[in-house]
This record gives sequence, C-alpha cells and structure tokens, in this order.
Amino acid sequence: MINRESGTPVYLQIAYNIRKKIVDNYYKKDDKIPTEDDLATLYGVSRMTARNAVTHLVDEGYVYRIHGKGAFVLNSKLNRNLNKLNNFYQDIEKLGLSPSAKVIDFIERLPNQKEQNVLSIQRTEKVYDVKRIRYVDKAPLGLQNFIVPKKLVPNLPNIDIETESFYEYLEEVGYPLYKADQKMESIYAPDIAEKIGVSLENNPFFFFERISYTKDNTPVELLYSYFHGENYSFNITLYSDS
Amino acid sequence: MINRESGTPVYLQIAYNIRKKIVDNYYKKDDKIPTEDDLATLYGVSRMTARNAVTHLVDEGYVYRIHGKGAFVLNSKLNRNLNKLNNFYQDIEKLGLSPSAKVIDFIERLPNQKEQNVLSIQRTEKVYDVKRIRYVDKAPLGLQNFIVPKKLVPNLPNIDIETESFYEYLEEVGYPLYKADQKMESIYAPDIAEKIGVSLENNPFFFFERISYTKDNTPVELLYSYFHGENYSFNITLYSDS
Repeated sequence: MINRESGTPVYLQIAYNIRKKIVDNYYKKDDKIPTEDDLATLYGVSRMTARNAVTHLVDEGYVYRIHGKGAFVLNSKLNRNLNKLNNFYQDIEKLGLSPSAKVIDFIERLPNQKEQNVLSIQRTEKVYDVKRIRYVDKAPLGLQNFIVPKKLVPNLPNIDIETESFYEYLEEVGYPLYKADQKMESIYAPDIAEKIGVSLENNPFFFFERISYTKDNTPVELLYSYFHGENYSFNITLYSDS
Repeated sequence: MINRESGTPVYLQIAYNIRKKIVDNYYKKDDKIPTEDDLATLYGVSRMTARNAVTHLVDEGYVYRIHGKGAFVLNSKLNRNLNKLNNFYQDIEKLGLSPSAKVIDFIERLPNQKEQNVLSIQRTEKVYDVKRIRYVDKAPLGLQNFIVPKKLVPNLPNIDIETESFYEYLEEVGYPLYKADQKMESIYAPDIAEKIGVSLENNPFFFFERISYTKDNTPVELLYSYFHGENYSFNITLYSDS
C-alpha cells in the first residue's frame, strides 16, 4: 500500500489512503480514525510519520483532534479548490479517487436566445447539448449539462466523454479554456436528486452557471452544474483590495 | 429620482433603480419590466439611455430580453462578487441598498479546541462570540456568527455593531483584514430559517466557514455564515493554471 520508491512522501501516502476512506464514507462524520500507534503498525512506519499523516488531514480539514482522545472525522464531503478553473478529472484523480461519468442526454439542436448571446453564435448555428452524471468512486456527485457550438467540436459525437475529460478534448482540438465566469447558487432540487439517484429528502444542491473562454476570449462552453450539497464543499482564498 | 449632477451616468442610475425593485421583490422572477419607451417617459430620458439601462441589467444577469416581447426578470437573488474579501456593508451599499444587522447573541467565553487552534490563542484567553442576523432593505438575508479573541478587541461590547461594520472597526483598532480562507457548503438548515424568520419550506442555505488574517498573518476572526439560498447568489471569475 505504501510505495517508498514513488516521489510522494510516505506520510502523504498514508494521509491520502485515510482520506479516500473518509470520502468513500468508510469512515463517517465523527468516527474515530485509528490511533497514531495503530497507524504506525498498520503501515510499518514510525510514530512520527503516522503523526504527520494525521496532522496533514487536520490541516486539510478532514479530521479534528481531541486532546487525549484521538482524531475524528470532521467532514466527509469532497472538497475542491475554487480559486482555479480546474479540470474535474484531474482534481478527483489528485485526491486519489476515481472520476467517471455517464451520458444521459446528447442532443444536437439550434441554440436558444441566451445561448446565441453567451456563445456568440447565429441562430442557425447548431449546438451540442450534453448531460452527464458525475461519479466519484462510483457514488453520484452531481449532474452537469454543457452546451457547446457544434462548429468548434464537430467530431464530439465520436468522443468517449464518459471516460475522457471534455476539457482535455477541448485542448486537443485547439480550444484550451483560460477563463470562466461562474455564478453560484444554493438550491433545492428534488428533480436532480431523483435523476442522479440520491436521497430525495432535504436536498440542497450547489448550482453553478459557468461560461468558459479561451485566452483570445472565444466563448466555448455554457455549463450548468448541480452538485449534491451532502457530498461536496469548496475552498477559496480571498484577498482584500488594500 | 435621476440626479444629473451626480457623477453616475443617467443610464446607470436608472439601472440601479430597477435593480433595487428587483432585489426588493417588487419585480419578481419572469415579471416584465417596463418597455424602453415607458422607461424613457418615466425617467425623462432618451430611448437610447433607457435601452442602455436595460442592457446593463442584462449584462449584470438580472434581466433577459425576448426578441419582440421585451425584458423580463431573470433572477431576483442578491448577487455578490466572491473574488475579493469584501465588506458586507460596502457591498450592499454599492448596490444602492440598505444593509443592517440585529445582534441576537453576544457572549464572552473561553475558546474551544478548534478556536484555540485557528485563532492561535491559549485556552485561558477569552473570545467574544457574536451572532447577528443580516438584513438588506429590512429583508432577512442570513445569520453570521463571528468569534474573535477578546485581547484584540477588548472594547467590542461598547461598539454598535448593528449599524456599523465590524470589518471597519477592525481596521480602526489596527487589524485590517487582508486574507481569508473560506470553505463553502450547500446545506439544509430549517433551524437557521426559523431563527432569521424566513419560510420553513425547502430551505437551501450557503454555509461559509471563514478564517480571516491580517497582512502579517495574525488570525483575527473565525466566521460562520448562513445565507439564504432563495435570496443570494455569488459570482466568481476563474482562471486556468496555464
């Protein structure tokens, strides 16, 4: 389980391993994780290394310590950084988890008024309108619906966007994304909950509406995302103007 | 209503005026706003100026146009920019609205383990723990709970934090905030809905946990915010690493 040849420090490998168990809900909120002595034995490392692994999880916000009692799961929500325009696949893989997607809708159609405006296209220029359910380690995380001008990605119907990143595909065909404007809401969405197959009770969702551009300001994608609040949180670092 | 002597262009004054009616829920989602001809007559301006005001509201995301039919309210949620560590009072006032607050709890107590860690204080160093309901134009928007070391703001009990900005007070006493780490969740919070006095049905809330620092990295404030999803949205601009 621990690979001493890899470039990743051993304490981080242990932290990733525990984090995976937290995100996969093997350890649940307020569950006690193994003691540092037990972790040291389990992974065959020094107690100091085990301690560093736990400290890393505390710093990341996954775990809290109670003096003399041990370390406990603070939050099992998947946490992503919102300071950068990130790639879903890369983010999830960096966490040591497996991203996947299921296409539930793939339509070619004429754009509505809003799509004409935000994607700068004529009303005769068709778009692809694609809905995917997003999974992390096979648990449904949310629904994403992207609308993209057909002329930019005419070959899209032949691409496997269940296992490949759409953003990486955009890079390959010459439209790497550089900037995005994103609006965020917190909404009640039982219809989405039903569609992705999560509990229908009290379902808070993040709703994001994102318009993404290349460096020369070509609008490429209009994206509506619904992420299940039970499973998802975001981090952001803010600076004042002064 | 229009002040031609002020530095603000007339079309913006008209836009702000309409936006205030949207945020105050005088115009509701999908309501038609007055035609450009009617706005021109109403405000005594040219049709071009009225048109610019509506275009500004479209650009800001408050209104959408349907060709040949007019302009309609897209969203009556209060929208704030999340790219900067902003001051609630200033943000709201910039929108031409009136911020206010009601203190529902003001406690002096010893810090818990987490507060000792994030605020870098000893367990014998007291904190102020303050809960305020936030209002915009008298409508409840959310609940904020800040925890601050007493030694930084010993005079806080004598300050009127219902009408004055706490962040401006921090500046005055030598702790201007520079940076914040913020975690965001979308949660179901009927208890908060009841406390602030909004509908108890289907209540999605934004939950923010923020730790704010001065430029020399002194942690000053631990802040828990609950903002009502029905009334609130955020904008953010993201850039890729490349």
